[in-house]
Amino acid sequence: MTESTKNSDKNGLTHLNAAGEAHMVDVGQKAVTERSATATGYVEMQPQTLQMINDGNHKKGDVFAVARIAGIQAAKQTSQLIPLCHPLMLTKIAVELTAQPELSRVRIEATCKLAGKTGVEMEALTAVSVAALTLYDMCKAVDKSMTITGTTLVAKSGGRSGNWHA
Amino acid sequence: MTESTKNSDKNGLTHLNAAGEAHMVDVGQKAVTERSATATGYVEMQPQTLQMINDGNHKKGDVFAVARIAGIQAAKQTSQLIPLCHPLMLTKIAVELTAQPELSRVRIEATCKLAGKTGVEMEALTAVSVAALTLYDMCKAVDKSMTITGTTLVAKSGGRSGNWHA
Amino acid sequence: MTESTKNSDKNGLTHLNAAGEAHMVDVGQKAVTERSATATGYVEMQPQTLQMINDGNHKKGDVFAVARIAGIQAAKQTSQLIPLCHPLMLTKIAVELTAQPELSRVRIEATCKLAGKTGVEMEALTAVSVAALTLYDMCKAVDKSMTITGTTLVAKSGGRSGNWHA
Amino acid sequence: MTESTKNSDKNGLTHLNAAGEAHMVDVGQKAVTERSATATGYVEMQPQTLQMINDGNHKKGDVFAVARIAGIQAAKQTSQLIPLCHPLMLTKIAVELTAQPELSRVRIEATCKLAGKTGVEMEALTAVSVAALTLYDMCKAVDKSMTITGTTLVAKSGGRSGNWHA
Amino acid sequence: MTESTKNSDKNGLTHLNAAGEAHMVDVGQKAVTERSATATGYVEMQPQTLQMINDGNHKKGDVFAVARIAGIQAAKQTSQLIPLCHPLMLTKIAVELTAQPELSRVRIEATCKLAGKTGVEMEALTAVSVAALTLYDMCKAVDKSMTITGTTLVAKSGGRSGNWHA
Amino acid sequence: MTESTKNSDKNGLTHLNAAGEAHMVDVGQKAVTERSATATGYVEMQPQTLQMINDGNHKKGDVFAVARIAGIQAAKQTSQLIPLCHPLMLTKIAVELTAQPELSRVRIEATCKLAGKTGVEMEALTAVSVAALTLYDMCKAVDKSMTITGTTLVAKSGGRSGNWHA
Repeated sequence: MTESTKNSDKNGLTHLNAAGEAHMVDVGQKAVTERSATATGYVEMQPQTLQMINDGNHKKGDVFAVARIAGIQAAKQTSQLIPLCHPLMLTKIAVELTAQPELSRVRIEATCKLAGKTGVEMEALTAVSVAALTLYDMCKAVDKSMTITGTTLVAKSGGRSGNWHA
Repeated sequence: MTESTKNSDKNGLTHLNAAGEAHMVDVGQKAVTERSATATGYVEMQPQTLQMINDGNHKKGDVFAVARIAGIQAAKQTSQLIPLCHPLMLTKIAVELTAQPELSRVRIEATCKLAGKTGVEMEALTAVSVAALTLYDMCKAVDKSMTITGTTLVAKSGGRSGNWHA
Repeated sequence: MTESTKNSDKNGLTHLNAAGEAHMVDVGQKAVTERSATATGYVEMQPQTLQMINDGNHKKGDVFAVARIAGIQAAKQTSQLIPLCHPLMLTKIAVELTAQPELSRVRIEATCKLAGKTGVEMEALTAVSVAALTLYDMCKAVDKSMTITGTTLVAKSGGRSGNWHA
Repeated sequence: MTESTKNSDKNGLTHLNAAGEAHMVDVGQKAVTERSATATGYVEMQPQTLQMINDGNHKKGDVFAVARIAGIQAAKQTSQLIPLCHPLMLTKIAVELTAQPELSRVRIEATCKLAGKTGVEMEALTAVSVAALTLYDMCKAVDKSMTITGTTLVAKSGGRSGNWHA
Repeated sequence: MTESTKNSDKNGLTHLNAAGEAHMVDVGQKAVTERSATATGYVEMQPQTLQMINDGNHKKGDVFAVARIAGIQAAKQTSQLIPLCHPLMLTKIAVELTAQPELSRVRIEATCKLAGKTGVEMEALTAVSVAALTLYDMCKAVDKSMTITGTTLVAKSGGRSGNWHA
Repeated sequence: MTESTKNSDKNGLTHLNAAGEAHMVDVGQKAVTERSATATGYVEMQPQTLQMINDGNHKKGDVFAVARIAGIQAAKQTSQLIPLCHPLMLTKIAVELTAQPELSRVRIEATCKLAGKTGVEMEALTAVSVAALTLYDMCKAVDKSMTITGTTLVAKSGGRSGNWHA
């Protein structure tokens, strides 16, 4: 029996009650455990756009730093962005950006942790998404064809469902 | 000569000054024009997950409505999420979700409009991203393998660079 | 023909499209006019609770000042609280609280103004509501039976529908 | 001796110090207990306005869903709206809207829960108020005479003062 | 060995990793202890400006109340303002403003408390800074030469580093 | 006659009405002009702390970038932090940090611009203050004696009062 079954309606979607109305799942009776989640995503771009970022990154610039900070800040705002997310007190947020020139893209990975009653998947995914949007923003003047892709959960620990990885 | 050239450093990235420091581009001298941008994205999921949403959507539920509202709200917060975005007064935000069972995914499209000095691409992309995250949140208890993919700009009008579509 | 007809679906509710989906009304083609709205509301309480506030107000205290500031701040956040409200740049917000001992209540009146494309009713109503909640918060330890009542629009000017008062 | 006595000044208002200055009550020494609060409120409207909502609600629409989501989101922002409220980590928020055609109004009920050091009355009342404002916003084009009324606490449990209901 | 050593890179700055990238320090393994911090700051102004505030303060006005409320509200938003600060649930915020006519300035002191895993220095400093800015805002029309000065930590307790005062 | 006289009460403080109640000044009748403001501030620290930042800044790090981004973000939130500030749509925000080893401090300068009805002094001062707090946050583990000092307006243009500099 998985962690989420208890709150589910017959439909299987935990955030809908029997009338199909969205609600915030009651986590009051869940145990406080150490929880962690890691998500990744990619910003695909033209090779010359990535080259510009790399120049900036190594020689003189802020591009990855701005995206990293935006991702960290967004993770802390997750419950204000995603209507049915619980407010959480994250104990760690790390966002890492890596240029992958051979794939003409930037890889973004975010890990969030807390000791709490509910998981932090959405916080990690939100950090990835907003870091990706911020990168997109800084490059959009030179490349309108960028695409944010592959945003997904790669690992999760803690909670009733225990450890999981993709 | 494109709209963005004027603010670019040699690097071509408009948000970096000559020292490689990120800054908010000065748009004070740009003309106020009618601007519009449309972005799309997808949440790929297992067929049975999409089936659950569809049941909810047509028969009894709020799933798409919650994601749509979250996307609209997020568009209004774009300048607080993306550090170098200008605060804007959007005159229109529309977010549309469509189940695509044959592709086992939900398609999200967002359009933003304003009469202003800078484009609204980031607002449309932010609306898509947060609507996708919200959909993910409501389904994650039954499907950990979902992926948000293909978030990109599909059309843009207004501003010095004129009309553009992917 | 009223200002709102144009955006209405057959249903008459301007924020629903033909499919019944909520959206933010497109105000891009509306004229920029001077707009103003005034709303009122009341916090009904036990006579001794009102007496305590009055003591604080005149002799030594912050009670009305805190509620007034909270109302002003809330008016500026209206578009973040009410999903389908447009972001606006208010040029004036005034919130006034008046003890009405003979009715055992506090009267709250808020007026908002801007030069813009859409009305400011929701901003005035939000200011009244949050000022009332703040007053409630400060008095709740001594009076659990307070009720916020009569929150309504009393006057409105500007826009296609012209001047209106209750 | 009630829960609030300890923090009160002579005036009886817990949020004022001896000089009449507003402050945030120190709850550091309070016990962590399971706390719950339920509030209600009403949006009174013309019969035909309620009819329009009902059409939307049952046949095709989002009206109640939007108001419910807005109420949930607002509950999470309570400490940012009400100056002297403590930040809290709610474990549950539920908002329910019910059409009451015989009374020509919509009834809103919100329940909030957490395990914490301070009560959640203000969170429940804020959810009701913002859900009501959101409903008002969606109907204001067809009915300027709506009134939000009867916003009050109906039940409370947990904390030193124990269970209470109106 | 101080509290912060463990998270530091060789550089000594706890918020930079070995690559010099800023991150949010992981506090997951820190003990929950009672923590308190007190900060002060000053707004220096022309004698006649302080006189105007004093008139307002004692006879008829809100000036100090508005600044106090702004400081309290800002303390609750610290983790949204300072990118690498953890979200915290403050149990107490107190902000005090004192006119010091002999020094032609207003002294601001803020104290924050919580039971948590990380200190509250930044919350106290943020409260002081925003209270000072708010005071500045209300007086800037009559005095453009005001300066906010001496914003610093004066005392701190709790955590591994124990008690400290300036 | 200065720009602010019109809104002042006899007291001279523009944000107080005749009853001494704080309010947001009505700027509806003011002309839209190009406005700019520049503010500065300093973080004084021990020489070895500044040395650590400098190492980070030049060789490998994010310290100044994080502070700069925090300042930019804060400028956009000014009207939410300072109760009586109007919401504004800044067209430019620039924040610059400079190490001044000979004075054992970091100098922060922020410039904000907009075409609007009210000045942007508070936005520039808020950017400086939050950039300073962010710098403080990243260094506090190694230096508890830092002080933020000298936060003041240095230049201002636009509006009825015309150009001004300190």
